[in-house]
Amino acid sequence: MTLERLYIYDTTLRDGQQTQGVQFSEAEKLIIARTLDDLGVDYIEGGWPGANPTDSAFFEAAPKTRATFTAFGMTKRAGRSAENDDVLAAVLNARTPAVCLVGKTHDFHVTTALGISLEENLENIRASIAYLVAQGREALFDAEHFFDGYKDNPAYAVDCLRAAIEAGARWVVLCDTNGGALPREVHDITAAVIAAGIPGERLGIHTHDDTGNAVANSLAAVDAGARQIQGTLNGLGERCGNANLVTLIPTLLLKPAYAERFETGVSREALKGLTRASRTLDDILNRVPMKQAAYVGASAFAHKAGLHASAILKDPATYEHIDPALVGNERIIPMSNQAGQSNLLRRLSEAGLKVEKGDPALGRILEEIKQREAQGYSYDTAQASFELLARRALGQMPRYFEVKRYKVTVERRKNKYDQMVSLSEAVVVVKIGDKKRLSVSESMDEHGNDRGPVNALANALAKDLGPYQRYIDDMQLVDFKVRITGGGTEAVTRVIIDSEDREGRRWSTVGVSPNIVDASFEALLDAIKWKLVRDGAKAQ
Amino acid sequence: MTLERLYIYDTTLRDGQQTQGVQFSEAEKLIIARTLDDLGVDYIEGGWPGANPTDSAFFEAAPKTRATFTAFGMTKRAGRSAENDDVLAAVLNARTPAVCLVGKTHDFHVTTALGISLEENLENIRASIAYLVAQGREALFDAEHFFDGYKDNPAYAVDCLRAAIEAGARWVVLCDTNGGALPREVHDITAAVIAAGIPGERLGIHTHDDTGNAVANSLAAVDAGARQIQGTLNGLGERCGNANLVTLIPTLLLKPAYAERFETGVSREALKGLTRASRTLDDILNRVPMKQAAYVGASAFAHKAGLHASAILKDPATYEHIDPALVGNERIIPMSNQAGQSNLLRRLSEAGLKVEKGDPALGRILEEIKQREAQGYSYDTAQASFELLARRALGQMPRYFEVKRYKVTVERRKNKYDQMVSLSEAVVVVKIGDKKRLSVSESMDEHGNDRGPVNALANALAKDLGPYQRYIDDMQLVDFKVRITGGGTEAVTRVIIDSEDREGRRWSTVGVSPNIVDASFEALLDAIKWKLVRDGAKAQ
Repeated sequence: MTLERLYIYDTTLRDGQQTQGVQFSEAEKLIIARTLDDLGVDYIEGGWPGANPTDSAFFEAAPKTRATFTAFGMTKRAGRSAENDDVLAAVLNARTPAVCLVGKTHDFHVTTALGISLEENLENIRASIAYLVAQGREALFDAEHFFDGYKDNPAYAVDCLRAAIEAGARWVVLCDTNGGALPREVHDITAAVIAAGIPGERLGIHTHDDTGNAVANSLAAVDAGARQIQGTLNGLGERCGNANLVTLIPTLLLKPAYAERFETGVSREALKGLTRASRTLDDILNRVPMKQAAYVGASAFAHKAGLHASAILKDPATYEHIDPALVGNERIIPMSNQAGQSNLLRRLSEAGLKVEKGDPALGRILEEIKQREAQGYSYDTAQASFELLARRALGQMPRYFEVKRYKVTVERRKNKYDQMVSLSEAVVVVKIGDKKRLSVSESMDEHGNDRGPVNALANALAKDLGPYQRYIDDMQLVDFKVRITGGGTEAVTRVIIDSEDREGRRWSTVGVSPNIVDASFEALLDAIKWKLVRDGAKAQ
Repeated sequence: MTLERLYIYDTTLRDGQQTQGVQFSEAEKLIIARTLDDLGVDYIEGGWPGANPTDSAFFEAAPKTRATFTAFGMTKRAGRSAENDDVLAAVLNARTPAVCLVGKTHDFHVTTALGISLEENLENIRASIAYLVAQGREALFDAEHFFDGYKDNPAYAVDCLRAAIEAGARWVVLCDTNGGALPREVHDITAAVIAAGIPGERLGIHTHDDTGNAVANSLAAVDAGARQIQGTLNGLGERCGNANLVTLIPTLLLKPAYAERFETGVSREALKGLTRASRTLDDILNRVPMKQAAYVGASAFAHKAGLHASAILKDPATYEHIDPALVGNERIIPMSNQAGQSNLLRRLSEAGLKVEKGDPALGRILEEIKQREAQGYSYDTAQASFELLARRALGQMPRYFEVKRYKVTVERRKNKYDQMVSLSEAVVVVKIGDKKRLSVSESMDEHGNDRGPVNALANALAKDLGPYQRYIDDMQLVDFKVRITGGGTEAVTRVIIDSEDREGRRWSTVGVSPNIVDASFEALLDAIKWKLVRDGAKAQ
């Protein structure tokens, strides 16, 4: 049986950016585009060229993607031709192979919000799409408020779609703009649209999660015949978010109801990168990944001992709807090291540490990780700190130096020009071999700005490490992430530091404490020690 | 037209407690039961009497509820009578008016996990339910793994339901135990079960969110004829969680497709307490409420200025699927660099600030917001800091006090027991009227942990604000978010602090600096000043 093709359209970079507090930098947009392309989505909507400087810059440095790179805009305004609409011109200037234009299909919005006649709106759609096609672009039409529009005036709503299709649109996309539609409505209206002559293989669906049904609404539209799904990574998006592609993609690939009927651009191999893709976006947003997220959450395959405990131990699959490895996730069975050991062996070998299966050190390492994770540590990304922990447990960690004490002061007061200024100063006392070394440092950057206590501590620590100095001279702190997280019963601060050296190596370390300075210092120390280990420094 | 009755069954206290890391105390269970009862659910499942000491204690001090208080357990084991099953006896000893027993319906689990014959399992169901009924209890049967079971052996799965119904069960509940079923399957299988003779008005649905469809699956079962929905507050539950009643209840009450056909025990008046009910559970779990939660999230009715800005300002309802007040939530129109004057006017009026259209202060405020956003500030969520900024520009900000200087020290060294410990100490000098006040404070919590420089500063600042002291005594810092962001050419630290007072008001403030301590201090100061303004404190 031949499979039908389903197309996946990602709008993380455009509609996802409508989320409160989210504004991607150009560099972040590039990372996200790369992540999406590795996953295998069909379309990447990059933003709205001309709407803000970042979007414009991103399109200028357009990434090379396998996916069809798409610019977003709106249909031309009334009273001017498509050729003379400056907003549309900015969108076309981005020179993307595809362009998606949003337009009205709800008669109420046409007459009230736009204040134009229903026919004028049809003409705006027709002319805009025809203009895209004439310019050699693949044209998509986002039918705003489609479901509400259809409920009020079905004939007009379908006329809008037909205008776009007849003008040459590859896709017309039914948008549930305010997120209020329910699965059965979406199914029935999509089916009615197809019955009215709009071909299902040119029909897309764009949903929002305001009733918790964004995923189900997308599936309902596919059930009814739509063949393109629009959504975002992690369901990012305005209000309650867009349809979550991270949830939809594995359902489409792994559930027989869809897998046996459809194929997508996402391969089973790429699907294994799904959990990582989801976490990448969280990292960029500095968000704590949602533990209960479907498929990719840290708890998605976590089984709490209880009613199911013995059945899970006999055969975990009895309580799992899919194998977590298929989406790059892991099973968590509390009180059982069984599942953990092979995973641990893999991470150790990645760190260049050879340990035999069955070595009692493995149990000790797992136990320590468990204890530290309960305190708030996380070794998901902090691979360098994981390596140090393992080396200590294996007796393979040199004793380079010991920090005897430190003190850091931040003072804010008026300077002689009567301006409020800050000054941070740190003293660190380190013992190397038998020798004690005191270092003191401020935290002033080249612009004369005080960069705070963590920077002062890093400077003091790096100032005089005696025999180790040459190893750390090229180290640089490139990112610093802070999260408040649960550690036992109290909130603690988790700091993750990314460091880099001249060779371009990049490594992450973690520190945890109720005190943010302590947590940072711990991560700093790990960063330095990892560098010493990796560069083969000998303990004094 | 008469409305059909839909029943809502809450299992937050039982299945919700299966969540990783969740273990309610008896007192917490009481608060949750009260919250559920105020909302108007029909059944409150309190736990599994005999399974753990807390559950047993909770049933002993059983709360008086309008809802039918229900104990959970499992069907009797094979080889003994219902009367002689000690596990079942413990459940009955809780003396609840209703008892819900889980049992197998998937033939594979019967023969593999239980290791008994299919007929023995039917007899266990029959005898257990009959025993409950004989004891005068309302009996419910949770059909474990029902959908998987039905797919493998539909006749047997339905036989299990029929055994329970014939033995007198008020309800048989179709459970998607591993969360893998999809809405269409749930609909079709539920319809088939009814066609096979199980009455819809005795049929319930119990779903999990492993494919992001728990809510849609519940609705699909209702569409097919089921009349009881099981779920939890905030979708709490093992792995990805259970069906979220906080999402389902407003859909059932407000969406015509359900509201015009069904009535529930939840009144429109009680629905206004939904947002508060959801936050109550988060408070108990010490979780930050999910901003994007459907209906009740802080972002659920937040509109980011942009494409929709002008339409929202004309009529917010055009971009809202329901009126947020119906569920006790609020509309938010945040500031953003794309915002225009009319948007600003609305924000000002929400803050209780009257400004005329065309007032030159509006331009000044917009300009300052733009400048500060370029430095790294963000006023999307930090509404309280926005209000203070506007008040300053309008000359409506009292000069309460001035911070002349501060100094904070973090020291880490060995204590007399040779353990490394930290100590943070802050000195703050504040001028109120003509009077200078010095305060000094450490940062030690009740467990003897040093909580760091920001906490020490907050303590020192709150220690002696003289005439303002009584206004800030009930203030509490509830969340603290840090991110590194671009400010001009340099990376800066942005700190957002959420504060709360005794009345449950919650407000967010922002601070930005290359120095994390400075940034935090700025956000702290804003938090205090907003409280003074809102409580009508008079400047000295």
